[in-house]
Amino acid sequence: VKEIRIGLVGYRGIGKVHSLGYRSVRTFFHLDAVPVMKVLCGRDEEALKKAALGYGWESHSVDWREIIRRKDVDLIDICTPPFNHNEIAKEAAKAGKDIICEKPLARSLPEALEMLEAVYEHGVRHMTAFNYRCVPAVRLAKELIDSGEIGEVFQWRAHWLSDLLDPALPLSWFYQKEKSGSGALQDIGSHLVDLAHYLVGPVEEVSAVSQIFIPERLAEKPAGDKKKVDVEDAVQFIARFSNGAMGSFEASRVAGGYRDEFEIQVNGSKGTVRFNSKVLHKLEFYTTEDEKKRRGPHSIFVGNEQHPYGETMCPYGEVIGRNDLFIIQAYELLNALAKGVNPATSFLEGARCQAVLDAVLGSARRHEWSKPEYARIEQIKARGGTARGR
Amino acid sequence: VKEIRIGLVGYRGIGKVHSLGYRSVRTFFHLDAVPVMKVLCGRDEEALKKAALGYGWESHSVDWREIIRRKDVDLIDICTPPFNHNEIAKEAAKAGKDIICEKPLARSLPEALEMLEAVYEHGVRHMTAFNYRCVPAVRLAKELIDSGEIGEVFQWRAHWLSDLLDPALPLSWFYQKEKSGSGALQDIGSHLVDLAHYLVGPVEEVSAVSQIFIPERLAEKPAGDKKKVDVEDAVQFIARFSNGAMGSFEASRVAGGYRDEFEIQVNGSKGTVRFNSKVLHKLEFYTTEDEKKRRGPHSIFVGNEQHPYGETMCPYGEVIGRNDLFIIQAYELLNALAKGVNPATSFLEGARCQAVLDAVLGSARRHEWSKPEYARIEQIKARGGTARGR
Amino acid sequence: VKEIRIGLVGYRGIGKVHSLGYRSVRTFFHLDAVPVMKVLCGRDEEALKKAALGYGWESHSVDWREIIRRKDVDLIDICTPPFNHNEIAKEAAKAGKDIICEKPLARSLPEALEMLEAVYEHGVRHMTAFNYRCVPAVRLAKELIDSGEIGEVFQWRAHWLSDLLDPALPLSWFYQKEKSGSGALQDIGSHLVDLAHYLVGPVEEVSAVSQIFIPERLAEKPAGDKKKVDVEDAVQFIARFSNGAMGSFEASRVAGGYRDEFEIQVNGSKGTVRFNSKVLHKLEFYTTEDEKKRRGPHSIFVGNEQHPYGETMCPYGEVIGRNDLFIIQAYELLNALAKGVNPATSFLEGARCQAVLDAVLGSARRHEWSKPEYARIEQIKARGGTARGR
Amino acid sequence: VKEIRIGLVGYRGIGKVHSLGYRSVRTFFHLDAVPVMKVLCGRDEEALKKAALGYGWESHSVDWREIIRRKDVDLIDICTPPFNHNEIAKEAAKAGKDIICEKPLARSLPEALEMLEAVYEHGVRHMTAFNYRCVPAVRLAKELIDSGEIGEVFQWRAHWLSDLLDPALPLSWFYQKEKSGSGALQDIGSHLVDLAHYLVGPVEEVSAVSQIFIPERLAEKPAGDKKKVDVEDAVQFIARFSNGAMGSFEASRVAGGYRDEFEIQVNGSKGTVRFNSKVLHKLEFYTTEDEKKRRGPHSIFVGNEQHPYGETMCPYGEVIGRNDLFIIQAYELLNALAKGVNPATSFLEGARCQAVLDAVLGSARRHEWSKPEYARIEQIKARGGTARGR
Repeated sequence: VKEIRIGLVGYRGIGKVHSLGYRSVRTFFHLDAVPVMKVLCGRDEEALKKAALGYGWESHSVDWREIIRRKDVDLIDICTPPFNHNEIAKEAAKAGKDIICEKPLARSLPEALEMLEAVYEHGVRHMTAFNYRCVPAVRLAKELIDSGEIGEVFQWRAHWLSDLLDPALPLSWFYQKEKSGSGALQDIGSHLVDLAHYLVGPVEEVSAVSQIFIPERLAEKPAGDKKKVDVEDAVQFIARFSNGAMGSFEASRVAGGYRDEFEIQVNGSKGTVRFNSKVLHKLEFYTTEDEKKRRGPHSIFVGNEQHPYGETMCPYGEVIGRNDLFIIQAYELLNALAKGVNPATSFLEGARCQAVLDAVLGSARRHEWSKPEYARIEQIKARGGTARGR
Repeated sequence: VKEIRIGLVGYRGIGKVHSLGYRSVRTFFHLDAVPVMKVLCGRDEEALKKAALGYGWESHSVDWREIIRRKDVDLIDICTPPFNHNEIAKEAAKAGKDIICEKPLARSLPEALEMLEAVYEHGVRHMTAFNYRCVPAVRLAKELIDSGEIGEVFQWRAHWLSDLLDPALPLSWFYQKEKSGSGALQDIGSHLVDLAHYLVGPVEEVSAVSQIFIPERLAEKPAGDKKKVDVEDAVQFIARFSNGAMGSFEASRVAGGYRDEFEIQVNGSKGTVRFNSKVLHKLEFYTTEDEKKRRGPHSIFVGNEQHPYGETMCPYGEVIGRNDLFIIQAYELLNALAKGVNPATSFLEGARCQAVLDAVLGSARRHEWSKPEYARIEQIKARGGTARGR
Repeated sequence: VKEIRIGLVGYRGIGKVHSLGYRSVRTFFHLDAVPVMKVLCGRDEEALKKAALGYGWESHSVDWREIIRRKDVDLIDICTPPFNHNEIAKEAAKAGKDIICEKPLARSLPEALEMLEAVYEHGVRHMTAFNYRCVPAVRLAKELIDSGEIGEVFQWRAHWLSDLLDPALPLSWFYQKEKSGSGALQDIGSHLVDLAHYLVGPVEEVSAVSQIFIPERLAEKPAGDKKKVDVEDAVQFIARFSNGAMGSFEASRVAGGYRDEFEIQVNGSKGTVRFNSKVLHKLEFYTTEDEKKRRGPHSIFVGNEQHPYGETMCPYGEVIGRNDLFIIQAYELLNALAKGVNPATSFLEGARCQAVLDAVLGSARRHEWSKPEYARIEQIKARGGTARGR
Repeated sequence: VKEIRIGLVGYRGIGKVHSLGYRSVRTFFHLDAVPVMKVLCGRDEEALKKAALGYGWESHSVDWREIIRRKDVDLIDICTPPFNHNEIAKEAAKAGKDIICEKPLARSLPEALEMLEAVYEHGVRHMTAFNYRCVPAVRLAKELIDSGEIGEVFQWRAHWLSDLLDPALPLSWFYQKEKSGSGALQDIGSHLVDLAHYLVGPVEEVSAVSQIFIPERLAEKPAGDKKKVDVEDAVQFIARFSNGAMGSFEASRVAGGYRDEFEIQVNGSKGTVRFNSKVLHKLEFYTTEDEKKRRGPHSIFVGNEQHPYGETMCPYGEVIGRNDLFIIQAYELLNALAKGVNPATSFLEGARCQAVLDAVLGSARRHEWSKPEYARIEQIKARGGTARGR
């Protein structure tokens, strides 16, 4: 049986759940290849060693360049903060490794374009880890929209509410433009933009407002020092889509009492779909085809055999959680690699998302409507063809 | 006991529930004056006569000018579509009648300014019927915000989802710019703008997108004919407020499955309030003052003796409905008139709302940020002083 | 036009909203008769006078026997606490007056039987004011069940949660067996039993547990004295229905944070209906007829033209409130009287409910299953025939 | 480092998620011992082999007696249907293996007692897999109740709604008394009884009603044959607890549209806790200590550092899913074994639950109140002492 040997950079938070995905994917899914958890990479060796042991990695390394050089690694998983994505991805591509990279793909569109160039140039396979495309209910929404069940798409609505109000929260890379690209937009808004791409299509133009409400946070070191926050706490923007739909987006870190709760809704000429991230196992669906007396939004438990991943991940509509999404994501990645194709959610999607994020930041800064520069992505794509085999 | 003698123009839909308000207000509230339902006015005499009898009016008339001339009428209630507001209000003011006018106050800011001029010039009292300011939970939200319970206001979020997808709906004045000023914005967006004024404050500038999705509707007569819709089905806009807050608004008539459901949310530095129009008896309130272990949004039944109208309208948290809001509105109006003061929600609020609506329409048309012209309102106010006694 | 002249006994709380019903019914409904609010009756003359004026009654009286004697009164509305129902109803029947009586009809089945005998003997019309039968969503549930949409009825589930935890609440008639018959059961459980009769059918037998948790309350006078509570704070019981269904009921006054919130659910072989009293405008409906991919509970806005009272009371699914139910109830009563028939929810329903309540109390006391004595009601009915015309 | 070598019997459904637990526990938790997934046991070798590979087991075996004999297995995990529990557990105990057994522990109290005797006699450690005790929100409820935050416990309310209406579902062991002990009661009611034990305490007596609604199902083989169902589709019962509280329980497989959704609520003299199994990350908590103006149920995201497992499993209130509960369960089991103590949720809890289940079945059969025979359990416990070291 073919092996896919993995090296993962960044063992905290998101690296932990990526690890969970690799370890547990075959509990739920059949794969034509076996993932091998070769090496976990990070900087704090003590903590890293413990993590590698706990998560089930064969070894650990404090040098990401070293794991890229390793012959026994086929796939590099980038779970670092955004400011490392570009360099690691380019090196990995150069070394001929397949790559999965956490979202947002980069700090800016130019960075993302470089990464895209690299994977095309070196013919490696690539995925952006937009894990919410892995929600069964989101997939069902996609199926319903694509099969015309809500008719022509009229409107998109999306908000992501988060709560980082606590002034005692330290100024991590989250709050520094140099490290993260921007604030709420890159961090959480990126998911919403990607889901809009998935469910509605390309964005024609955006008009945005953004703001910093908590201008200073405590530095991580030296502890106690105050340092300036230079990224937005919240951004709200409106959009026109290429297909004629209109839409609104919001990403906020100052929504007291809401903890990474997002909601997306697509209104069409014949119905509506709505999804809330705190009710992962359900999709709300409205259709004007129901007879009037019984008409009303259906609350669908996504867990029938007709539903995406239905029988596998949430048989009988059992509640799934955020961790489960990383198992599905691992499946999507490894299944594509095992079959020799590129994952559906590639660096292209990461770059397209970044094109919109850059347009949003530009719009907020220049106080006017702004258009995403998708064309630069399509040029690279046209030049590069799809991932070439190795 | 003093009497307040009322003439109401427009007996359908909204005129019906205004009538309910006058008839039932004293069942719940003490007033220092007695409302007398003198005359109901409309065009279709047959239907009007029946309505007058059913609603409890002493008489009826098919000529609104006639009821304004009547000596035995003190207060004119304008429940017609927007295109009549201006003319009726100006005539009523000239005749020295106090006025309550349905929202939106006018089809445009210039019209609203004329109406404002008129009531100031003739020294009559005036109210705009923004009935959602009468929701006990909304009043509680105002109290909590004003007393600093959510800290500094950071963000406003509001959407009103409605469903007029059915292509068989006839092209009423709802869908004609000449009659209504605009579409979803004037009709339902106006409520959201007013609530933003109430809970957050003046809007500095807006950027908007709007669209017509259903371009033709069936004419009312000749029946069967198709006629062009020239007002927006949906509008989404973002805003900066004068106090530094940011916000988003949406008014949609193409949200399949949602029936006049709106939600408003104010995020502050110390907490959040959220209100949904389909749960009129509750306010969601979050405060960072709760100890962490128990912290989470409170779902407050508004019906304690500490709550606005609590013991009167929803003792013990009983469910109130839309009809009840018109009873509270009648109280607010008649109580002010009985006490010889102007209602708190005057034509000023109607005009301020219209200033924002005009800015939104201008922004959508010109594709750029746009500022409400509040200054023109304040000039009239400054010139006119408050309502002069008669 | 025919007049129906009304005398109402008991002007507080429930008497207020019955008054609202008479006053506003013709705002919404066409009637072939005109209700005339003749006289309001109570004991505290000062407060009564004010109430009569506010509610719109022509006169007031402190003697209920006097209003029963009045020639110009056709209908007696009994809104007193339960301990007066029996005497007033029997006198009213003897005087040939039609009667509407608040629920619970009496303190016990024997009392209810006397009342039933009286209305049959004197041939007057009669109604028990189970106002929750007037909820449009409940009517829709009834229609769906009757037309077989949920198949064979398997299970009933009902709970009513209320919060009288506050130890400072005075010991009103609510807490005294002599005045109210029992506690949570008579007060709120009676509604659930009536709705079970309406939606499922007769109860074969019950097994109950009940308890007093707050054994003493402050007497109303002399203030400050503690007095024993002798009625249950909560009761929970299970039941077998005559049609083979099974069910459970709960009525609790010690459910902290819940304010008169009840929920009922009927599970059938092909689907489910569920209703929550805090969401009066909606019915949840599940059917196995939906194709599997879209299957899930529908959340129906009750306000289409196909829905009971849809266009009248909640056009377009507008939120209705508790007050509105009394308008519908007034319509059901007056429409029946105008048409010369007995209201559908007659004293029979009141007595049937009481039969179950007595069985529940007996079961809790004797610690065994107990059967409602419906037979005694049917004997009276058989003997008496329907209400004879006058 | 110490190893805990595991053999698991029963690889379908529940065995899969137990496997997930062992495999992923150290991703989230620190343990002083390393679980080693030695051998997976089942009957269909082809499928078993695939499962063993996918789940990460070192080997597989079609003979459960063989894995019990193995020297390199320390812990037996019983994931078979109930009719095998007794025999396997007794053999495993005799062989000196620690045991975790799926719920319900047995088909009847006598069977459970034998198992309890066995683990005491042979001094092995033992756990019943009541996985809902592992929900962070349920643990928080326990903490709040124990620390007096809701005062004296008055009422328990619990229902579990499931939907096996589809007549095409085959007659598995689920529907056969001989294999499962009973129907909805053993299957899902057992969880509710255990949670009542956890949060309220021992049950004094119960009165129950149960019913078979779908009397025949299709046999698994020969396919197409109809076979009689001899276990209840639904059971509802009321209870008195030893501490004076009262309560109700429901377990239904005929609740169309509900998929393993349960809700539990504890009402106390000072507040309430409520939990819904489809919202695993939240606890609803009401306290009369909040000031009246802000009072209302709190919706607590369980994911603060003060919350049980808060930072580990649901940092920041992230949604957890059913799979995550098995990771927590694996931790509770392995952590106890590593520390040399018995897991908190031992066979005692399994037996106590079974005592109540037997009482419920007896009550339904004999149509009278019935008392759980806890005493027989306590005798064994008294005789046996705690698990003796090996």
